[in-house]
Amino acid sequence: MSREASPVDFEKVCEASNTIKGFVHRTPVFTCQAIDRLAKRKVYFKAECFQKTGAFKARGACNAVFLEKKRNPNSPGIVTHSSGNHAQGVAYAAKCAGLSCSVVIPHDAPKIKCDAIREYGAEVIFCEPSYTSRIDVCAKVAAETGKTIIHSSENYDVIAGQGTIALEFFEEVPDLDAILVATSGGGMLAGIALTAKAIQPSCKVFAVEPVGKELQKSLEAKECLWTDPPKYLDTVADSIRLQAVGNLVFPIICENAETKVFTITDDQMIEGMKLIFERMKIVVEPSAGAGVYAAINYLENIVPPLHKVGVILCGGNVDPNTIPWTT
Amino acid sequence: MSREASPVDFEKVCEASNTIKGFVHRTPVFTCQAIDRLAKRKVYFKAECFQKTGAFKARGACNAVFLEKKRNPNSPGIVTHSSGNHAQGVAYAAKCAGLSCSVVIPHDAPKIKCDAIREYGAEVIFCEPSYTSRIDVCAKVAAETGKTIIHSSENYDVIAGQGTIALEFFEEVPDLDAILVATSGGGMLAGIALTAKAIQPSCKVFAVEPVGKELQKSLEAKECLWTDPPKYLDTVADSIRLQAVGNLVFPIICENAETKVFTITDDQMIEGMKLIFERMKIVVEPSAGAGVYAAINYLENIVPPLHKVGVILCGGNVDPNTIPWTT
Repeated sequence: MSREASPVDFEKVCEASNTIKGFVHRTPVFTCQAIDRLAKRKVYFKAECFQKTGAFKARGACNAVFLEKKRNPNSPGIVTHSSGNHAQGVAYAAKCAGLSCSVVIPHDAPKIKCDAIREYGAEVIFCEPSYTSRIDVCAKVAAETGKTIIHSSENYDVIAGQGTIALEFFEEVPDLDAILVATSGGGMLAGIALTAKAIQPSCKVFAVEPVGKELQKSLEAKECLWTDPPKYLDTVADSIRLQAVGNLVFPIICENAETKVFTITDDQMIEGMKLIFERMKIVVEPSAGAGVYAAINYLENIVPPLHKVGVILCGGNVDPNTIPWTT
Repeated sequence: MSREASPVDFEKVCEASNTIKGFVHRTPVFTCQAIDRLAKRKVYFKAECFQKTGAFKARGACNAVFLEKKRNPNSPGIVTHSSGNHAQGVAYAAKCAGLSCSVVIPHDAPKIKCDAIREYGAEVIFCEPSYTSRIDVCAKVAAETGKTIIHSSENYDVIAGQGTIALEFFEEVPDLDAILVATSGGGMLAGIALTAKAIQPSCKVFAVEPVGKELQKSLEAKECLWTDPPKYLDTVADSIRLQAVGNLVFPIICENAETKVFTITDDQMIEGMKLIFERMKIVVEPSAGAGVYAAINYLENIVPPLHKVGVILCGGNVDPNTIPWTT
């Protein structure tokens, strides 16, 4: 059964930082003069691709799993549904906590992802490739085993964990004018936006999205306008395919992030990804390339001008045999 | 004209560290549990691919160029021959020092490299694609302009600069049992080996080489057995193609490095390179992949056992359009 935590705030983010310490990396912040010239401003890259499991998801997963273990020392374990980075994060966190872990994954997911999840000792349970099937199978496993469901974004502990990215980022670069965050379910956006608002209220946190998400429309309406059940978008950025932001994170985003959203095409994401490869020698996913592209091309007309901009290089789990610009 | 500096020693390496400070990065050291498991020991990666200009060469180049400027404040500038990372390093260093710079480069070198060198404000002068032509044209430019030749390895200031890699490495990991160094002209190997011998005499420094170099034969004979003029090897590792180690670095290597040398095929280098891409999300050149491959596969029979091994990820200047395992 899913346990309800108290709503998330800055204090919870600071607590999360202590909770996950030693199990996740304090990732480095990089700069690149060539990209600064292209962007006509200073750009700071928080390299979450160097995070445990290759993506920022390890933060939220560790916080949620460790707190579950603390609240419920005899927990029969964790279950989640995700085909990608969140699944790896939860499997890793459960291994660290010594908890049993099941991951519900669409049967058509790449074998390489199933293997990675199993490497952390988690059980892989297949479902149909639809949101409804994922939810249903996950709920069934939870009911049968008593395992706690940890959703990838609709979970306050997960949001607090992702907020630690911003905590560390401001420690390195205290005067960021903006942060660009690639957005899928919205957990990272919510965590970073609420943390930024607490530390540096003038810092603007912008969502970056694939074509078809239309987050800005919902933010302007202050209402979730997506279909239920949520759809998956057809984008090269496999880690940000979920179209809808969830009901739990939506008000946090409305309150703390900018209404303006940057929409990035697949080709533009790949361009950003390739630039980071060539100029910074770092492997990042297309979702991270989206933030890079936005930083270089879409900030010119923002008032007041943004001098120092942070980009989250959110993940680096790229199959070396299917690098998008080579296939 | 080339100026002779005093022979290199540990003190010169420490001085180099001060000389180049602020102009080169103190590069991070990474570890990777998955690679530790493969190698059956702890492996530490010094990420010189994140160095200025994308390779360790910026260190030696900065030290040599800055010292030239100090010794000869009215220097008419610098000239070098190199088609790759050393050329970029010298061009960068000359720009930092405000000195004019000419680079002699084979006319069949990739346009992308010429562009990178010109980006640092250096003049590109074409020569025939042979060692003799490179030497001749470089000497002619030096004679006509009075510019100082800075060779990529046969230069004590360059060697001292490369030694700073080891200085930083031991500060991070004081008890390294061995360091693996991809070797071309031998400047980095000489600098690292003499620094390791001074700081941690029990640490073994091994050369890693492409097929056909046969460095071990010369080290065993304590004599340079290569042909004169030196040949270039046919290897995917374009930054370590020079077959011969030079006369100036050879005795330093004989005295401070292991006689045992690890020879790595092109396919093995690419395997190492791909592993670093997949597991560590870092872009490295095939030459860096050579050290990775050796660390995983060739250390089992070394006595006494090597528990903590350092690998220099010497460069990351990979053309994203010609990634070796995708072409």
